[in-house]
This record gives sequence, C-alpha cells and structure tokens, in this order.
Amino acid sequence: MSDRSNPWQLQTIVSQLRTARNQWRTQNGRVSGELGGRELPSRAAMAEILEALCGALFPMRLGPVDLREESEDFYVGHTLDVALNALLAQARLELRYAARQAGLPDDGVDETATVLIQDFALALPRLRSLLDTDVLAAYHGDPAARSVDEVLLCYPGILAVIHHRLAHHMYRAGLPLLARISAEIAHSSTGIDIHPGAQIGRSFFIDHGTGVVIGETAIIGERVRIYQAVTLGAKRFPADESGQLQKGHPRHPIVEDDVVIYAGATILGRITIGKGSTIGGNVWLTRSVPAGCNLTQANLQHDDGTQK
Amino acid sequence: MSDRSNPWQLQTIVSQLRTARNQWRTQNGRVSGELGGRELPSRAAMAEILEALCGALFPMRLGPVDLREESEDFYVGHTLDVALNALLAQARLELRYAARQAGLPDDGVDETATVLIQDFALALPRLRSLLDTDVLAAYHGDPAARSVDEVLLCYPGILAVIHHRLAHHMYRAGLPLLARISAEIAHSSTGIDIHPGAQIGRSFFIDHGTGVVIGETAIIGERVRIYQAVTLGAKRFPADESGQLQKGHPRHPIVEDDVVIYAGATILGRITIGKGSTIGGNVWLTRSVPAGCNLTQANLQHDDGTQK
Amino acid sequence: MSDRSNPWQLQTIVSQLRTARNQWRTQNGRVSGELGGRELPSRAAMAEILEALCGALFPMRLGPVDLREESEDFYVGHTLDVALNALLAQARLELRYAARQAGLPDDGVDETATVLIQDFALALPRLRSLLDTDVLAAYHGDPAARSVDEVLLCYPGILAVIHHRLAHHMYRAGLPLLARISAEIAHSSTGIDIHPGAQIGRSFFIDHGTGVVIGETAIIGERVRIYQAVTLGAKRFPADESGQLQKGHPRHPIVEDDVVIYAGATILGRITIGKGSTIGGNVWLTRSVPAGCNLTQANLQHDDGTQK
Amino acid sequence: MSDRSNPWQLQTIVSQLRTARNQWRTQNGRVSGELGGRELPSRAAMAEILEALCGALFPMRLGPVDLREESEDFYVGHTLDVALNALLAQARLELRYAARQAGLPDDGVDETATVLIQDFALALPRLRSLLDTDVLAAYHGDPAARSVDEVLLCYPGILAVIHHRLAHHMYRAGLPLLARISAEIAHSSTGIDIHPGAQIGRSFFIDHGTGVVIGETAIIGERVRIYQAVTLGAKRFPADESGQLQKGHPRHPIVEDDVVIYAGATILGRITIGKGSTIGGNVWLTRSVPAGCNLTQANLQHDDGTQK
Amino acid sequence: MSDRSNPWQLQTIVSQLRTARNQWRTQNGRVSGELGGRELPSRAAMAEILEALCGALFPMRLGPVDLREESEDFYVGHTLDVALNALLAQARLELRYAARQAGLPDDGVDETATVLIQDFALALPRLRSLLDTDVLAAYHGDPAARSVDEVLLCYPGILAVIHHRLAHHMYRAGLPLLARISAEIAHSSTGIDIHPGAQIGRSFFIDHGTGVVIGETAIIGERVRIYQAVTLGAKRFPADESGQLQKGHPRHPIVEDDVVIYAGATILGRITIGKGSTIGGNVWLTRSVPAGCNLTQANLQHDDGTQK
Amino acid sequence: MSDRSNPWQLQTIVSQLRTARNQWRTQNGRVSGELGGRELPSRAAMAEILEALCGALFPMRLGPVDLREESEDFYVGHTLDVALNALLAQARLELRYAARQAGLPDDGVDETATVLIQDFALALPRLRSLLDTDVLAAYHGDPAARSVDEVLLCYPGILAVIHHRLAHHMYRAGLPLLARISAEIAHSSTGIDIHPGAQIGRSFFIDHGTGVVIGETAIIGERVRIYQAVTLGAKRFPADESGQLQKGHPRHPIVEDDVVIYAGATILGRITIGKGSTIGGNVWLTRSVPAGCNLTQANLQHDDGTQK
Repeated sequence: MSDRSNPWQLQTIVSQLRTARNQWRTQNGRVSGELGGRELPSRAAMAEILEALCGALFPMRLGPVDLREESEDFYVGHTLDVALNALLAQARLELRYAARQAGLPDDGVDETATVLIQDFALALPRLRSLLDTDVLAAYHGDPAARSVDEVLLCYPGILAVIHHRLAHHMYRAGLPLLARISAEIAHSSTGIDIHPGAQIGRSFFIDHGTGVVIGETAIIGERVRIYQAVTLGAKRFPADESGQLQKGHPRHPIVEDDVVIYAGATILGRITIGKGSTIGGNVWLTRSVPAGCNLTQANLQHDDGTQK
Repeated sequence: MSDRSNPWQLQTIVSQLRTARNQWRTQNGRVSGELGGRELPSRAAMAEILEALCGALFPMRLGPVDLREESEDFYVGHTLDVALNALLAQARLELRYAARQAGLPDDGVDETATVLIQDFALALPRLRSLLDTDVLAAYHGDPAARSVDEVLLCYPGILAVIHHRLAHHMYRAGLPLLARISAEIAHSSTGIDIHPGAQIGRSFFIDHGTGVVIGETAIIGERVRIYQAVTLGAKRFPADESGQLQKGHPRHPIVEDDVVIYAGATILGRITIGKGSTIGGNVWLTRSVPAGCNLTQANLQHDDGTQK
Repeated sequence: MSDRSNPWQLQTIVSQLRTARNQWRTQNGRVSGELGGRELPSRAAMAEILEALCGALFPMRLGPVDLREESEDFYVGHTLDVALNALLAQARLELRYAARQAGLPDDGVDETATVLIQDFALALPRLRSLLDTDVLAAYHGDPAARSVDEVLLCYPGILAVIHHRLAHHMYRAGLPLLARISAEIAHSSTGIDIHPGAQIGRSFFIDHGTGVVIGETAIIGERVRIYQAVTLGAKRFPADESGQLQKGHPRHPIVEDDVVIYAGATILGRITIGKGSTIGGNVWLTRSVPAGCNLTQANLQHDDGTQK
Repeated sequence: MSDRSNPWQLQTIVSQLRTARNQWRTQNGRVSGELGGRELPSRAAMAEILEALCGALFPMRLGPVDLREESEDFYVGHTLDVALNALLAQARLELRYAARQAGLPDDGVDETATVLIQDFALALPRLRSLLDTDVLAAYHGDPAARSVDEVLLCYPGILAVIHHRLAHHMYRAGLPLLARISAEIAHSSTGIDIHPGAQIGRSFFIDHGTGVVIGETAIIGERVRIYQAVTLGAKRFPADESGQLQKGHPRHPIVEDDVVIYAGATILGRITIGKGSTIGGNVWLTRSVPAGCNLTQANLQHDDGTQK
Repeated sequence: MSDRSNPWQLQTIVSQLRTARNQWRTQNGRVSGELGGRELPSRAAMAEILEALCGALFPMRLGPVDLREESEDFYVGHTLDVALNALLAQARLELRYAARQAGLPDDGVDETATVLIQDFALALPRLRSLLDTDVLAAYHGDPAARSVDEVLLCYPGILAVIHHRLAHHMYRAGLPLLARISAEIAHSSTGIDIHPGAQIGRSFFIDHGTGVVIGETAIIGERVRIYQAVTLGAKRFPADESGQLQKGHPRHPIVEDDVVIYAGATILGRITIGKGSTIGGNVWLTRSVPAGCNLTQANLQHDDGTQK
Repeated sequence: MSDRSNPWQLQTIVSQLRTARNQWRTQNGRVSGELGGRELPSRAAMAEILEALCGALFPMRLGPVDLREESEDFYVGHTLDVALNALLAQARLELRYAARQAGLPDDGVDETATVLIQDFALALPRLRSLLDTDVLAAYHGDPAARSVDEVLLCYPGILAVIHHRLAHHMYRAGLPLLARISAEIAHSSTGIDIHPGAQIGRSFFIDHGTGVVIGETAIIGERVRIYQAVTLGAKRFPADESGQLQKGHPRHPIVEDDVVIYAGATILGRITIGKGSTIGGNVWLTRSVPAGCNLTQANLQHDDGTQK
C-alpha cells in the first residue's frame, strides 16, 4: 500500500538495519561504543590530500593553472601546510584504530602520528627528485611523447607512480591503511593496481596501464618499463600449510634493472627476471629468467600455474 | 576570418545541430515534443543516490567520518529519506519513459514507482546482511587484508558488489535502466563490469578486479572467488536464427559454489563450472567442468570459440 | 622532535623542493621565468569543457535532466558559448607553449587559436551526425540494449567514442596536447584508451571496453565492432635505426569495414584485417588477414612478437 | 556528566522537540500529517530564482561577466527557462498551501500556477522597460553617478526596485507569500523594506536607502525620489473597531508625481503629498500637503502620532 | 615598472605585512607563537551552526523544503548531531582563548565546553516553546500577516529573535564571544542589533526592524512590541569615574510587560517604561514613565541627553 | 492556455527583451557590439577579492581558522597572489570601460592597470598599520569590548572601515567603480554606507553602525567616534545653477580630531565640527561648530534644511 505521508516505513527499516549492524558487531566480537568500527580514515579526505600533494610536488604542471614562478613557494608552502595537517588527522585515526584492534592503549598516538608525518614531509624533496626520473623515463620510453611537460598532464602511468611513491612511504612508516587507500585512489582513476608494499626503483615507466597489477612483495629495479595488463603476482598459495596462509612472506617477482615487459604478460611467484631481459606480450611465466633474455610466446613452454 | 564580437557563428551551429537532432528523431520515428527522447533518468542523480545508500548501509565506514554510534540511526534515517525520495523520482522517469516507448498510457506510473521503491527500501536490511558475507569473504580470501574494516574502505571488488546487489534488486523490480546506470557507475570507478541481471550468491569476492566482465544471465553460487580480467561471457550468437538475435536467452556460464577463477580466465557460453573447481589463470574455457576439477592452461586443450 | 608550533619545518621543505625544481629545470635546459614549464593547459578545465560539449551535442540525454524541447536551442547556444570560450583559452595556452618549445615567437597565437576553435565549432553538427551512427551501431550490436536512449546513458564505449571524435578533430587541427588530455579523460572513466590520432569510420562500437588500447596510427573502417581488452598496437620498434625511434611512422593496424574483434585479441603492427573478417577472443595476431576471414585461437599459429 | 560516547542525549532532545512541535500544532488546530505546516515555499529557492531573473533582465550588467552580445539571447532564454520552471514549482507550493489553509481542494493548483507564471513571464519585457526608467532616474538624481552602467552595479536602491517590481507582480497575481519572500531578500541585502503591495510609478529612485520602509497600501507617482530612513507608514490603528484590526484597508500615504522626500522623514496615514512637493529631512508628517509645497522641520508644527 | 614575471613584489609585501603584525603583537604584549592571536572561533563556522539549529528547531519551515513529517525526527537528530559537535569545537576555541587571555591553564577546557554545550542542547526544547510565543506575537501584532507559517519565512524580526534567544543562552553560559558572533550574524542580515546580554520575555515582536539597537543590560518584559529604528541604549557615561568606564553596570532601559514602542523612538539610560505604556514614533526619552502612559512627541518635552 | 510542451513562449519573451535592450541602447547612444555596455567589473568577483584581502591583512583572525603562525607567510603570499591577479583583471575591465565611455583608445590599459595594482599592493602594509589604530579605537571606545581580537570578529564598524580604506585607495588611484562596488559590499552586510571618496583619519570607530551615511567629500580627522544612523551629508543643491548640478564640489562636512557624534545626528553641508566637540543624539546640524563644543537637542535651535 502506498501511504502518501509515510511511504517508506523508515522506522522499521532503520531499526532492521540497526539489528543487522549489531549482528555483525556481535559476530566479529565488537563491543558496541568502544571497538565499534568507527573513526576510520576517510577516502574522500585522502583524495583531497593527495591532490594537494601532487600540486605541491609539481606546482607549475599539477597546481593551479594561473600560477606564476614568483609565487610558487607561497603556493607550495600554503598547500603543504593544509595537506600535512589533514594527513596528520588521518594518521591519528589509523593509529588509534590500530591500537584498538590490537587491544593496546592509544596514549602516544598523537605524538607518534606527528613524528611520522614530519618524516613524510621531510621526504618530499627526495620523492620529487625520484619522480623526475620517472617523468624522463616516460618521455624517453614513448615515441609519441612530445615533451616532458606533456607526460605529467596526460600519462596515467605517471599519476599511478606519484601515488605509489607517496603510498609506499606511508606503508613503510606504519600507516598501511592510508597507503592502501592512496593506492586505490590511483587504481580507480588509472586502472593500475600497485600494492603500496611494492619496491620500485628510479626511472620506472608504465605505458597505457589499464589492468596492470603489482603485488605487495614485488621488487622492481631501475629503468624498468611495463605495458598494460601486465601482472606481477603470486602463485597459488601451497595447500600444506595447515590451511592458514602465511602473511608478509615474499611471494611476488623480482624484476631487475633495465627489464621491459610487454602488454598482457603474467609473471607469478618469487622468481627473478634477470637484468636487461625482455618479456614478450601475453607471456605466462612462473620460472626465473637469466639476464639479457628475450622471451616470447613462441620460444617459451607454458608451465602450469595459477596465480594470485 | 576572426570577428571579435561574433567569433563562433553560434546561430548557424545551433541551427545545424537542431537539424541533426531532428533528422535523428525522424529516422527513429520520434514525434517531436511527445516521444522526444526526454525525461530519461539522470546518471548524476543516480550517483548521488548510490553514495547515500552506501552510507546508510555502512554508516560507520562509508558514512561521514565524524559519525558516532549514538547518532547512527538519525544519520541512517535522514539519509535514507533523502535517497529514497530521489530514487522514487528517477523510477518515475524510467517507468514513464518505458510506457512511452511501449505506446502505453502512463497513468499508474507514480503509484507503481512508489510500490517498487517501497519494496526496495524494505529489502535493504537483507541486502546489508548479504553484503556482510561478502566483506567477510574478502577478508578471508586475501592474505593481505588486515581487518574487515579495511575491506570496505579499500577493496574495489566490494564497491562493485554493493552496487551490484542494489542494481540487481532494481533489475528484478522492473527498473532495468536504473539498474544498468548503477552498474556502470561502479564499472567506471572499479573497472569491474557486472551486468545487473547476473545472479550472485553470498560470500562473493573479486580481487583487484580491473577487466572483470560478468554477463546478464550468469549464475554464480556461494563462496565464489574471482580475480582481475576474468570474463563470464556469451559465446558467439548462432547465425541460423534468421539474423535476429534472441534476447533474454540464458547464454552465460553457471558457476557453482566454492569455485575459484584466477586472473585472465575466459569462460564462455551456458556451461557449468562444477562445485569446488579451480580455474587457472588465462584459461580459455567453453565446455562444462565437473565438480572438484582443477583446470590449468597446461592440462587443458584450447577449443575454438569467440565470445560476446 | 615534535614542536607544536612549528611541526613541519615548512621553510626547509619548501626550499628543498625549490632546489629540486631548479635542478630539473637546469637539467632540461629551461630558463627560469621564461620557458619555465608554466601556462600549460589544464586537465580540470578540459573536463568541464568536454562535459559541456557532450551536453550541447545530446541535450536531451546528456544535458540537464529537466530540459524541455522548447528550450533546447537556448541551452545548446548558451552551453556552446561558454564551452567554446573556455576551449579557446586552452588552445591559446597550448599554442603559446608549443611556440616556446620550438623557440618561435608567439605573436599570432591568439589569432590562430580563434581560427582553430571556429573550425572546431563549425564541425560539431557533422560530428553529431557521425556519433548518431555510433549510437545506432551500439543499439544493433548489443542484444541487451533496449533503446537508443539507453545507449547514451549507460555504454562506456559511447562515451569513449564521443571523446575520441572531439579529440581527433583537435589532433588534426594542431592541438595534440588538448587532444591527448581529452582522450585521457575518457580513458580514466572508461578504461578505454584510444589515441586521438587514430582514424575511425562511422558506426563504430566498443562493448564493455575495459582494457581496449588503440594506437596513434591505427585506421578503422566503417561498422567495426570490438570488445573489451582488444589491443590495436605497434610491434617492437626495430633496433637498427641508430637507437633513435622514428615518430609519426605508420605502425598500428588497418582494420577494414565490417570487422568484428572479440575480447582480449591482440593485433600488432602495420598489418591489415580484411573487410568482414572476424577475429576470435584472445587471438594474438601480427600478420595481415584477407577479407572474410574467421580467425580463432584454434585455427591460428602463434607467431612471436612483442608489442608496443 | 560528560559521557564520551553519548554526549548529547539526542534521543531525549529530539523527543522533547517533537513534543514541543506537537503542542504547537495542537494549539494552532493543525492535523498532523495533513495540514502539518509543510510544503511551504523556500527562501533559498526564491533567492536563486531572483538572481537568475536579474541576470535575464540585464544580461550584460547583472549576468555572467564574460557574456558577449552575440550570445545574449541564448543566455537569456536558457536562464529564463530554468528560473521560470523553478518559480512554477514555488508557485504550486504556495497555492497548495493556501488551499489547505482555506480548507479548499487543491485540484486545479498546478494549472493555475502555470497560468500565473506564464503571465509573469510575458510581463518581463514590460518590467524591463519600466526598470530602465528607474535606472535613468538614479543616474540623473545622484550627481555622483558617473554612468548608467554604474547604477546597476552599485546602487542598492536599484536592487530593491528590481525586486519590488517583480514581487509586486507576484502580489497582484495572487502569490503574496512568494512576493513577500522576494521583498525580504532585497530588504536583507539593502536595508530597504518595501511591501510588495505598494504601487510605485516609473522613474523611482531611492538613494542610500538603509532604513526605508514603504507600507502595503502606499501609492507612489512618477519621478519620485526618496532618501535613507524615510518611512511611508500607517498611523496607529483606531481602538474602537471591536479589537479586531481590519485588513486590506488603505492606510499608507499617497505620494504624487515629482515629489522628493529627504532622509529620515516619517509620513504616516492615508494622507496625500501633492505633486512636486519637497519634504525636508527628519520631518514628521501626518496631514496631507498640497501640490508644490516645500516642507521643513522649521516651517512645520509637529503633530502627535504614532505609526505602524 | 611592470615586470611581467614578478609584478607584485610579493616577497617585499609579505615581509612588510609580517613586520606590521609583529609590531601589533609587541604593542599589545603578545608572545609570538603562544598568545599569538590565533585559534579564535570562526564566524563562518558559527553561521553554519546557527542555520542548522534554526532547521532543527523549525524543521518544516526552516529545514529542507522536501522534508516530510515521517522523517522529521531523523532530520532533527542528524542535524543536531552535526551542529552540536561543531558548536563544541567552537566553544573549546573560545574557552581556550579566554584562558590564555587570563593567563590561566587550559586543562579543563574540553570538559567544560562539553558540559556547556550539553546544557545548551538540553535547553533547545524550552527555547522552541518560547520562540513559538514570539511567532504568535508577530502573527497577532501585524495585520498584514496571513498565517503563522508566513511569519517564520518572511519576518526579519523573528530571525533576529531566534538568534538572540540562542545567543543569550551562550552569553549566560560563559561563551560571550560565540554569543556576540551569533548576534552579529543576525544583525548583518536583518539590520537588528540586539546585544546577547539583553533579557527578553516571551511573546516579543519587532516589526520591520532595520536600525533597532538593544543594549547589553536592557530588560524587556512579556508581550512587548517594537518597530524599526528604536534604540534602547545607554546614556553618556559619567565623566567623574576617574576616566575608566565601569563594565557590567546596568545602564540600559527596563521595559515592562505589554509596552509598545513605535518607530524611531530613542530610550536611553537605566529608566523604566511602565507596564502597558505606549511610546510614540521618534520620541526621545531619558526619564522613567509610569504604567499605562501614552507618550508622543506632542505631549513630551525633550530632555538633553546623548546616548551610547 | 497552458501548453505542456511550450509553457513559457520563450521565443517571444526573449525577442521582446532584446527589443527592450536595443531600445535602451539606442536611447543612450550605444553602438551595438562596440560600446554595448559589456565587460563591466563583477560584484561577485570583487566580493571574493575583498574577502581574500581581509584574510591577508589579518591572517590569524580573518583568515582560515586552522592557520598556525609558522605558515602565516605562505598563506599571506599565496592569498595575495590570487587576489591581486583577480583585482588586476577587474581593474582592466574598469579602465577599458572608462576609455570606451570617454571615446579614447584603450591601448595602454593593461599597462596602467598593472601599475595601479602594484601601487595598491605596496600600500597594503601601511593600510594594515592604519587599521590597527582603528581596532584599538574600537576596543577603547566600547566598554563592552573584551579584547582586541573580539573587535575584528564581531564589530560591523571594523568591517566597514577595512573595506573603506581599501576602497579609498582604489578611488584615489582612478578606479572609482571598483571602489564603489567595494563600498557597497560593506554597506550590504553592515548597513554602513561610506562613499569611497571620504577621507578618514586614523583611530576611527563606528559603533552599531546601521544607517550611517558618509558622503563623498567628507573629511574626518583622527580619533573620531560615531554611532548608528549618523549622517554626514550634503545640503540641497542650489537651484540657480542652470539646472545642472556640479560634481566633485566639496559639499559634505569636515569633522576635526577627537569629535564624538551620537546616534541619529544629521550633519549637512560643507560645515566644520571643531576639534574635540560632542554632537548629541538626533541633533540636526547645518552650521559650523567651534572646537570643544558640546551640542545637544536641548541647547540647539533647529535650522531648516534638506539634505542629500
């Protein structure tokens, strides 16, 4: 029946939703009002922070369009100030959440968060220099690129790498949730999914990028170039470990310096791609490859393997 | 020539664009001012509605960051009220559009829309409980997941499944256009393309997700896990059906309970993947598979097939 | 140490970031304050312009939801006026930037930009008619499509094609940077990556679309249909060209009229897919195919090849 | 006590506020859910509508700053379309509310509202010409005015008169609530309080304006000029009318053509200020004045009088 | 000279502005970085809070236009939650600032602020009932008022009284700065300037209102009605108090029950206007008046007096 | 008649509005498309600029609430940069408009505008120091003021004076239109109407302020204090000047140092109020007053006079 003044029976639905939430909390051992799943960091807040950091790192190209060199430093300083304060607030939320999860007191959380974000702030100039090598790599790696400036405006791969280098710093600083959210923001707009734990050397370039997946324990050398839909994944987890999968275990590939991996290649497990090798498009690879190797579908035997 | 005061010749362009629109309307048998392609639902409106519904379903994790448990119900009630009214308006647009398309009167449209959205509202608590099983599945399915809370913030697969379960309800309720728009909103931000018609059981988990395609008549059991770039598609439509392709026809796979499908696997046609099977990465499959099967590229002969 | 009143040492960081930027400028031969990387076009501005152009081209379906036919022309005229002025400003930025890059004077830039955008504006009615053929192609090509109106609201492929046809015009007009930004805006929201240089005939349809890559010199005929994850790419660039890769060189496939290419197919190099051919899912192809051919993984020998 | 997880006792306050509302509704004879004080027009909506109408009436001066003459008509047409639709929605709310208040059915409300707003729309060109006479009056009346263009940008009196002429049309059309809201929007930003019922002839000019009050039944001729803090009010209502004050009764002054009233003058009751008279600053007046009179504090005896 | 790349000499101006600020801080005995004038409450924040509180107090008339009675409580609860949390943050800023000014520690500030805002929250139902008497007073006091609903939408006097009653509670609670900001927000939009210290009885009505000033120690009884430009002010402060003016001293009028004061009347000093009196327009009054008196300019001798 | 698909007859109204505009342009001697009333400065733009300048002048009190001293200079520099560029754009519009009005070429306009805004920028530190004297004057002049910080947050008089000192600089620099718009922005939110031409000495304080009017040629000394509804106006312009009123002519009062003027006083004509005088409330004054005079209604004969 369609009652005009009370169409939605909101009281009923709201109360049933509360029941569902309580059921969930009970199932997962939450004490209501205490460990109640609240005060998590916010994805929307992180998106704003990352946009501001991109502007502060590359003011003339990712900052406001009418910026002039005279006022760059004012813009950079003010933007960093706002972004770092906001990031500090998010870091506190994560640390407080982590303390609750671990059943530890959250006394020192504010102090710790401040120290972590101070370190993060001090690392920014080094990250900028590192990112400059990525921009040059993109410029030299794509014959279609007309200028280094164009790279920052148009290449989704660069956007993903900027986010990754910032997220990786957070990951190592003990803020894995903020790191993960940062990575997913880039994933959502580029289709490139790099776990913030992955270690990536200078002059890294991803072209096109949609569908790229790079796992948590992957290690990538310098001057590596990869194309769309490349996976650097884990093999299936062994069944004999009493059912429980071990975490933190190195399980993704090591890619040495100067490697090129063409589109659609799938590389699985803790194997090593030797320095200077080339992996052809759509190649499926679960065994290590020596340096200088040129691997294609034609010269490769498929091995069986499932991946994660 | 560049006339400063009249650079664009707007009158000319506007009038030629009108001619182009009229040509289109004539070609497609539209009567101007009557069936004239207007009053379609709005994608921007649906995006706001879905964001509000996500917040109402998971207030502490997808709602505003400063929410406290005390005021959860107020937030949920108010947010639902706004979202359901807005959804009602969109449903009326779709039903009125459908009536016009079918040449039927649109008398009862407002009444019908109200009933449909009332049913939708009443289903939300059940959908929340169902989604809780998906969250747990993600938490247990990914060794990198640190907590159930993290899953909702960071996993694109969960975002896609929330949208799908809401869209699937709309689809079954006779609102296929709203359903489709909802699915595309998730597709755009996750790269995961699930047709709202697909039936998906509890505890469903998609990891990474970019490039996943699940077709309209696919049926997926409980506790199924799939990875990025998996396709559950249709085979090529047979040529002998007098040229006209039949709609609604079951043409996508049935995936039974406890199946795992690794990245890049392509599964086409109305075949069945038996309970507990594992399909390896990049596998191309157009024939049914019995329960408990462990299929990899190595132990499988490619069959010919094109897909839709 | 955590000093409450000066936690970030902003002066230090700002000054180190300036050092990093100066280093970059020196390395890349920039004269500060002159060629200093500034006054590039803005991606945010282009995103607004393209949204407005979509509304002006399809007012009843991509314009504001409450538009009525009576006032279509007012909406179209006003929206175009705003969008074209904004596009003109972006075009000036690109031309001035290009002049600086080339070491040429930028005297005539404003005049040239006006002429280019005038041509662009005059081309819009023709582009609208061309896009109508794409909408019909989508409607006829997907058995799930219920109406032509639905196509514009729900199909990411259509969104990508609208952006491409606008971007291609800019590309040919000598605004490759605006063109590239426009293409990336579509890439980001659809996962479909079409280089603005690609030439595409009428009645073009991409279904699902995530992961599609179409290269700069690709030529696509009329009534072509392709599915998700299809690549029309370049083969590896020959090593014997004194190290330097040649630009502009035709290096992507020619796809003739009435070809269908199923999901995941990879087609590389300046080869030709003959009229009316069908390329099966996941096929890897680096040799030309005659007209009327039906190619699947089963009836094809893999050839070696890496792609770009 | 300050309970961290439940500081506000929201349930208690919300329920007491509900009790207070119910008490009010009972006292004022409202039936909950039926006449319940809802669906009144919105001040925020009217503010947007009036801003749009100002832009449509004076596109080059109150419209967007980058408008060019070429596209004026597109802007005007599109802006009017949006504004009139929004005004129609507000008019329906007022008429439905008035019907409920009067205990009448609201069947014809939508039809009536449409007719009223159609008339309003058709009156706009005439109102524009009338307002042009006010702009010229301001230009000629203030020696400090440098150009007619400046008047529209800087004179609060003109803003008040534009709002009044629009509000007066609504008032006569049977939309007194929308009229009153429109008048209060101008009152709030200019300090000039003109009741929408007042009749005002062409070429009207208010200088400075703060504190001006013009009552509901005032009648003002052509070419009248008044200064800040002038009151055209009612005298005290007679006590002998059985306690009940009569509404609609003419109770404010008639000001004939070419009158000037200087700052702070108070003119009360249904008296007439004869053609061409001048009323000095701070004069207190409750008796009629013949044509051509020049009245100052010095040549006038104060009469007793209180005003409304 | 106009240097294109450095037109503003920002470094110079920024440094001179800093010098000016430091000079100010030195002059006023501020220790930089400690008492440095920072962390004051924000007017913009208070404006949002007050708008939300108005909506929570009168949801159907000052809340969102599409609210229905069914969902009133959800809206009220959610809106209060947001507004009270924001108000708490502002209260902390004021208390911390006051502690610094007084050279006291700010240890208990957060606790105190919570208690104060809890009291404020609990007082809201009583304030709503009080405001209902003001609304009825306006409805009965103005023959032009058509309905009680109209009063809330259109009468600036009501807006001023709502803000006053909220501000007065803050003032008494020891938050004079928030109180003052709240009063100024109303002053700015209505021209009515009521000091938050003034005590005002039930059923209070101000008509038109522009220019009304009511001082800090004024006491107003029940059922009082006043018109525009009325001043309830202080007389000049006596010169013999060793130059220093005493604060908090009662210095504004006492207005007893059922008094009416017409427009422009000026009433100065700690005098008493007896119950039921009427004060005529423009009357200048510095002596007490017995009950039942009817005072006009004609029957009153002016006394000399200046006012504050 | 109410045609659903074409209710507004927009074509008719738009065309009649165009006719009205053309009539106006013809009457006022405008050449369409050339002098056509366009490219005037924007009030909305000036409002944003002034808000930014207030923040840059008083960063800790009128800037963002979370600013810390460490980052003040970054905020000030970045905010000034944005505000000055925007002001430059407005200045160009005014100068170009003035050139067109005067029939002069607008060649040097951009250069001139840059020089004017450079001067304006360099004057800001001096204006800040001047405003500090006004803040102290308010603090000392009002016994209710608790701290200098409160003055900037709560006193409308200070807001008006900040705007005036900025506007006065623009006025003297040859940007009278921007100056006037700035003054009206303050007038609208404070009810205080100070013509930007007025010259005002240091330590100026206006209390309450609603209804204050200060004319273009008024000259005010140091340490002057005035209250609400005070007028410093012009007497009536003599009739014998061949009908045409002379502009620029000194016609408003000179108020010497240390004068206090109480509420409602009206002071008209080019008279002088001698140093240290006190003018009582509601006094009407058109003759000069010697130094040290204490004037009240009681000891003063009214003289006749009307004012402008």
